[in-house]
Amino acid sequence: MTTKKEAAAAVLAAKTRLGLTWAELAEALDTPLAWTTAALLGQHPMTEEQADRAGEVLELSADAVAALRAQPTRGALDSPVPTDPTIYRFYEVLQVYGPTIKELIHEKFGDGIMSAINFRLDVERVPDPAGDRVVVTLNGKFLPYQW
Amino acid sequence: MTTKKEAAAAVLAAKTRLGLTWAELAEALDTPLAWTTAALLGQHPMTEEQADRAGEVLELSADAVAALRAQPTRGALDSPVPTDPTIYRFYEVLQVYGPTIKELIHEKFGDGIMSAINFRLDVERVPDPAGDRVVVTLNGKFLPYQW
Amino acid sequence: MTTKKEAAAAVLAAKTRLGLTWAELAEALDTPLAWTTAALLGQHPMTEEQADRAGEVLELSADAVAALRAQPTRGALDSPVPTDPTIYRFYEVLQVYGPTIKELIHEKFGDGIMSAINFRLDVERVPDPAGDRVVVTLNGKFLPYQW
Amino acid sequence: MTTKKEAAAAVLAAKTRLGLTWAELAEALDTPLAWTTAALLGQHPMTEEQADRAGEVLELSADAVAALRAQPTRGALDSPVPTDPTIYRFYEVLQVYGPTIKELIHEKFGDGIMSAINFRLDVERVPDPAGDRVVVTLNGKFLPYQW
Amino acid sequence: MTTKKEAAAAVLAAKTRLGLTWAELAEALDTPLAWTTAALLGQHPMTEEQADRAGEVLELSADAVAALRAQPTRGALDSPVPTDPTIYRFYEVLQVYGPTIKELIHEKFGDGIMSAINFRLDVERVPDPAGDRVVVTLNGKFLPYQW
Amino acid sequence: MTTKKEAAAAVLAAKTRLGLTWAELAEALDTPLAWTTAALLGQHPMTEEQADRAGEVLELSADAVAALRAQPTRGALDSPVPTDPTIYRFYEVLQVYGPTIKELIHEKFGDGIMSAINFRLDVERVPDPAGDRVVVTLNGKFLPYQW
Amino acid sequence: MTTKKEAAAAVLAAKTRLGLTWAELAEALDTPLAWTTAALLGQHPMTEEQADRAGEVLELSADAVAALRAQPTRGALDSPVPTDPTIYRFYEVLQVYGPTIKELIHEKFGDGIMSAINFRLDVERVPDPAGDRVVVTLNGKFLPYQW
Amino acid sequence: MTTKKEAAAAVLAAKTRLGLTWAELAEALDTPLAWTTAALLGQHPMTEEQADRAGEVLELSADAVAALRAQPTRGALDSPVPTDPTIYRFYEVLQVYGPTIKELIHEKFGDGIMSAINFRLDVERVPDPAGDRVVVTLNGKFLPYQW
Amino acid sequence: MTTKKEAAAAVLAAKTRLGLTWAELAEALDTPLAWTTAALLGQHPMTEEQADRAGEVLELSADAVAALRAQPTRGALDSPVPTDPTIYRFYEVLQVYGPTIKELIHEKFGDGIMSAINFRLDVERVPDPAGDRVVVTLNGKFLPYQW
Amino acid sequence: MTTKKEAAAAVLAAKTRLGLTWAELAEALDTPLAWTTAALLGQHPMTEEQADRAGEVLELSADAVAALRAQPTRGALDSPVPTDPTIYRFYEVLQVYGPTIKELIHEKFGDGIMSAINFRLDVERVPDPAGDRVVVTLNGKFLPYQW
Repeated sequence: MTTKKEAAAAVLAAKTRLGLTWAELAEALDTPLAWTTAALLGQHPMTEEQADRAGEVLELSADAVAALRAQPTRGALDSPVPTDPTIYRFYEVLQVYGPTIKELIHEKFGDGIMSAINFRLDVERVPDPAGDRVVVTLNGKFLPYQW
Repeated sequence: MTTKKEAAAAVLAAKTRLGLTWAELAEALDTPLAWTTAALLGQHPMTEEQADRAGEVLELSADAVAALRAQPTRGALDSPVPTDPTIYRFYEVLQVYGPTIKELIHEKFGDGIMSAINFRLDVERVPDPAGDRVVVTLNGKFLPYQW
Repeated sequence: MTTKKEAAAAVLAAKTRLGLTWAELAEALDTPLAWTTAALLGQHPMTEEQADRAGEVLELSADAVAALRAQPTRGALDSPVPTDPTIYRFYEVLQVYGPTIKELIHEKFGDGIMSAINFRLDVERVPDPAGDRVVVTLNGKFLPYQW
Repeated sequence: MTTKKEAAAAVLAAKTRLGLTWAELAEALDTPLAWTTAALLGQHPMTEEQADRAGEVLELSADAVAALRAQPTRGALDSPVPTDPTIYRFYEVLQVYGPTIKELIHEKFGDGIMSAINFRLDVERVPDPAGDRVVVTLNGKFLPYQW
Repeated sequence: MTTKKEAAAAVLAAKTRLGLTWAELAEALDTPLAWTTAALLGQHPMTEEQADRAGEVLELSADAVAALRAQPTRGALDSPVPTDPTIYRFYEVLQVYGPTIKELIHEKFGDGIMSAINFRLDVERVPDPAGDRVVVTLNGKFLPYQW
Repeated sequence: MTTKKEAAAAVLAAKTRLGLTWAELAEALDTPLAWTTAALLGQHPMTEEQADRAGEVLELSADAVAALRAQPTRGALDSPVPTDPTIYRFYEVLQVYGPTIKELIHEKFGDGIMSAINFRLDVERVPDPAGDRVVVTLNGKFLPYQW
Repeated sequence: MTTKKEAAAAVLAAKTRLGLTWAELAEALDTPLAWTTAALLGQHPMTEEQADRAGEVLELSADAVAALRAQPTRGALDSPVPTDPTIYRFYEVLQVYGPTIKELIHEKFGDGIMSAINFRLDVERVPDPAGDRVVVTLNGKFLPYQW
Repeated sequence: MTTKKEAAAAVLAAKTRLGLTWAELAEALDTPLAWTTAALLGQHPMTEEQADRAGEVLELSADAVAALRAQPTRGALDSPVPTDPTIYRFYEVLQVYGPTIKELIHEKFGDGIMSAINFRLDVERVPDPAGDRVVVTLNGKFLPYQW
Repeated sequence: MTTKKEAAAAVLAAKTRLGLTWAELAEALDTPLAWTTAALLGQHPMTEEQADRAGEVLELSADAVAALRAQPTRGALDSPVPTDPTIYRFYEVLQVYGPTIKELIHEKFGDGIMSAINFRLDVERVPDPAGDRVVVTLNGKFLPYQW
Repeated sequence: MTTKKEAAAAVLAAKTRLGLTWAELAEALDTPLAWTTAALLGQHPMTEEQADRAGEVLELSADAVAALRAQPTRGALDSPVPTDPTIYRFYEVLQVYGPTIKELIHEKFGDGIMSAINFRLDVERVPDPAGDRVVVTLNGKFLPYQW
């Protein structure tokens, strides 16, 4: 039985071998870019059709395709505080601006949270003469505390 | 000597007592909303002028005003993994989508990071018939690894 | 400025001094029992009316009443793994049955979570000849993963 | 020798391959749903008869069947704080409502705990026009501190 | 309001000042030795009568007496692994003999636990020509796993 | 080379396969019950004779027999705080009664410790009409602090 | 698929077998010494040309060469606090001089950081009659906090 | 008795109030810049003369002056992994380049370490048209492993 | 009530104020040097006579004298891994040579430990032309594992 | 490629198989006892000659011999706090006497450390009528803080 982690490794290897991009994979599956990347990395289950299509494009084994469909136990960081600099910067944002985001959500919505389930994210490259910018948009439904 | 943490507590108390919002405080200081909130919570130093203005609006002591100007030692979470649900959801986004964000940054920009220093963030309320949405935009300059 | 933690200590002291129960406090505030307990312990903000009523019944200071209305930064355990035996048993349930609960939620609902925000809980005493039973009901809206 | 963890993986693989549900497995073994799930995931030992029946239905190897009967060393979380969102919500409930549950147990029963050994749990789907609800019932015998 | 920890410190100070032993305190309260020690150190609540008697013997303040009656949030170690050598040896016993104790409980009783709630302990000095021995007896009701 | 951990796994497998109990193994080796269990689980080295006898009774490989004789690096818990409920209860006893045990040792013996080296333990089943009891006796030489 | 960690092990083995130095490898690749070492240890991706050249000089497998080109997930310490004495001394420098470095950066540049991305380092041996000295130069672009 | 931490806070407050820089303080004490900063922050003991001079320039209390002379227990980070971004970048350098630095020290010197005791550091601003650079030089005596 | 930690702080302050050395204090108390230091730092209880003599020499308050006599809860490090370089080196010795010491104890004595209770230590300065040496002697009774 | 850890395991297996002692191995290599043990356990690199001689005596494979010569990444404890009782006692010494050792080093030498690099240790058995004693001597060059 192939785990989702092994399937993700197979995806990465195939993606490099075949010279594919996440954008091309998303297009091939007709699914949003970030969702597709997350699903192929093992954080979302795929439908049978999506997994089959991914298996075809990435020339995956039947076992890896089955793994793509399996329900994930989520959590992708190796340690509570990430060490990779690209990922760490987002943890740093949380360390510096976490209470700020909390205050502004409460001011604009009242007591509650941004859902991380009814949620989508986007990563964009925005040209800027002073150096292009990474713009990550986190978009989740507001859920008020409701007894 | 008042610490920045004590100054932040004084800000919160005054804000409640005077019935002010972060939006009104940002307007009074003529600074961006999220920056203003972060600075008043002690994560950014204020200029003399900004601190004086904040002190005026929030009726702070001279010591608290001095603290607002001091250079912060940043880091606002009480523990490596935040326990407050509103803040935790952003940690969860990192746990579930961290490697996805990393992959997409590398695909769109090459090897490097989103700066958390040359950086701004925004928290918006976007109306939606299925429930209004929290949209948090993280916007940082791309910094390529450069030896 | 009184913190919510100090207010909770004041509540506990007054409750003992006045010989009140959580049930009586819930009745006095006309709010659900568990919600009332959680709010007076500092995990939910009260409305002005509720806080005033609580202050009256518990003979709290104006500062403590203000603290009851403040937005909480939630998280009530002193350490990631609780040491108090009464609380630990629930952590143990998570250690032993966590994946079971996850499997059954996914089988009955598909991919998603039980909301801990649109959520209520109840603690009941159920008579049993072999020893009365503690029945804790966790009741949260199902939130499907939705991009 | 097959470990209980390997047996659980074999169970999950077979369950998917054969298109079985936990409900069908519970019915086949004539044991409660949540208990069956927990036992097949390795957190409870099965009797010889139960393990044989499970092996038959799930087409398991003799080694896996033997593992199902073995006494477990319990504990199913990979880290003290779970990262999977579906499981984390229950940890969050503990963070937010732990002391509330403790207070109410003490008010209704006196000093003691809810047993996690003389214990059963149930996960139900309760229809609700505002969105169906997950209802998890924790039901344990009250054990008073008794010297 | 005096916490149970402050009350315990007051107990220790008074005990030294008055030259009392735990054995004398247990006799004065007519309660078992180890229970008395644990209760005075804040790990068990006392009845009104017991607390009053302890207050009398130890010349405690009314606040400290009230604290002795309060429901404890248990947990007496400063860190997950104790550093004091006298206490550490018991942690070492767990590190070396934990699985042995587990195996023998299961062999003699089946699947279940020794209750730490319906439980008493005793510390005795047993004379031995090769050096007197500390004999600690842990005595808890067996609780079988019971669904 | 077989590690002591692998040898312990082989012991457990053989014990189940051959339907032996720890009591029978202790009798076969003519060694105390708890010591035998601990030694076969890898926490004590066996003499050549003991290991050979154990190998005979349990039909172990020569490598496993050699491992039983090897000097152990002790420590049997997978994490600082054990998760298995049967073992955890003893950790809980330490959390609740650790300082009590310390106080009583000091009162009865003076400054020092119970040795965990010149030490033996026993696990007994004591019949009780209200439910049989697990009685664990920890018996160690008192070692006074001695410069 | 070879991981970057396995490729690094292959590099170290080959380097020893062939009697090569990092300096010779850097010369062969015509890349800076420290960068070359870091890249071969798996912390920087190589271009196709660099990886091929490294593969040639170190007689690596095609899989190892491919791994050298792959995007790394960075982070080379086995634990948050390093145990190797040569590496630990730099952690100690951070423990003792971290706030000093922070103060001096802020005094000389204002609020901001030394980039660890637009960054290079050098390790030199500086002769000294009292014992040669290790001189490590950390050289990063200053990045001012900029909203 | 003033602790070195309290003395450091007094130094920072006085430095701000009097508008002094670390450079001016170093000049006033006639000691190296980074050493002076570290000593005033409590990580190095001062001689009587240095402490008196510092007390004069910074208008410190006699207690604070005494604290500056005391032997420090070193260690300036609040947690094993620093959260302040300016300090964190140096931890990140260790995460990414630690083994590289180790390899190069061993290649240039053999088995041993850079002393963090016979050690000095320097923080410089180096003008650069592409953005000025922070250059931190760590300079320690090489200490070979020597039995 | 003065804690042993506060008493230790008072000792250190008095020692500095009066210009005393540990050697002079040991002589005044007629107790071994390292024991005296440890006891005055709160890790060993003093007899009434010793505490009184220490109080006299160091001009301590009656409360501090009482604290010196109290039974300590031992453990003097602020964190599991010490950060002070002078103390850390001994932790490093354990990291590098721990298993070596274990092997040699077992080779010379058999299975058992060096007692840390029936134990004394000594710190000496040994002149050496290549630089004087710190010689720390750990001297504990061997305790064989004995059931 | 054999790691140093695997080589150490091979050394231990061969040592047992051949019935050799560390003392005999040290004699065969003509190196100090503790150094030899540490080097064979993987904490010091051997010269070609030493490794070859060790390989001969212990009948090791060429790969294991190569591993003995490799530069170690030091650190031999499995967790920050050791669990093996023989090793733990030395950690306990650090917990109880760490600050004492620090005070005495500073009193006898001034500000600085005992080197753990220019360092040797010895483990001896000293006969004593009250029970033989383990004497561990830590002998390191004093290194004064020197800017």
